[in-house]
Amino acid sequence: MLKQQTQSSLIPELEKRMRHISGAIKQSGRRILKNYPITSPQFIALQWIIDEKNLTIGELSNKIGLAFSTTTDLVDRLEKNGLVKRLKDENDRRVVRIVPLEKGEAIIKEVIEKRQEYLGEVMESFSPEQAEVLDELLQLLYKKMKDINER
Amino acid sequence: MLKQQTQSSLIPELEKRMRHISGAIKQSGRRILKNYPITSPQFIALQWIIDEKNLTIGELSNKIGLAFSTTTDLVDRLEKNGLVKRLKDENDRRVVRIVPLEKGEAIIKEVIEKRQEYLGEVMESFSPEQAEVLDELLQLLYKKMKDINER
Repeated sequence: MLKQQTQSSLIPELEKRMRHISGAIKQSGRRILKNYPITSPQFIALQWIIDEKNLTIGELSNKIGLAFSTTTDLVDRLEKNGLVKRLKDENDRRVVRIVPLEKGEAIIKEVIEKRQEYLGEVMESFSPEQAEVLDELLQLLYKKMKDINER
Repeated sequence: MLKQQTQSSLIPELEKRMRHISGAIKQSGRRILKNYPITSPQFIALQWIIDEKNLTIGELSNKIGLAFSTTTDLVDRLEKNGLVKRLKDENDRRVVRIVPLEKGEAIIKEVIEKRQEYLGEVMESFSPEQAEVLDELLQLLYKKMKDINER
């Protein structure tokens, strides 16, 4: 009983905090992307295409939470800009998979390094213990979010 | 020396984790907004307009990290939909401030309650101590992010 009370009283504060942190991450991300030839949604898609290897458009559309048609348009643009290519699945030629090209991988590598630099600066005053605890709690949080979003 | 090493080795993991959590929050937020007559950028703007009271377009544009012209369009649409209105500053009639209308406040209240419900579900398995520690660490993180983004 006490457990539930304590938690629920923190939820509104945590919701707001996470909403604002997401906003700040988005802003810093947008600032970094200004120097690269991709938009925010393209960055998010490309990052999943590299992380997960051989995604279909349907799988990618689930990952980024956009409609199938919007995801198709996004991949069209990435392909046109030489960042990814479509490849027929070797086992089932009707299935098309998206694979990253060198240029796409190079851009993501650079952008993520810049994002890590930013986070490194943000966390400069964190002790190693604080960083570790934050990492553990966020891991737990993300696991639950994934479970809920996917069901 | 040890402190810096421990931290920096966690930064790539934390950057990825926070990127994915932001994505999951965005997805769940988008899903909630499907039942309301506002888009994601409109929700973000409206939420700041309510939280901060009497913002100018310039101030709002800084908060949401979008260009002045994009922010003006956004406010136009919110005004057209009866969610906010523009008001001349009493002390300086040349300054226009954005104030929320009842309908706008009611929508944000409902959407934020739904977001809190979602987070409550995500954090069901967190102990009160874990929730508190997470809140403290995120508070620290956000403070730093704000400092860096605003400078």
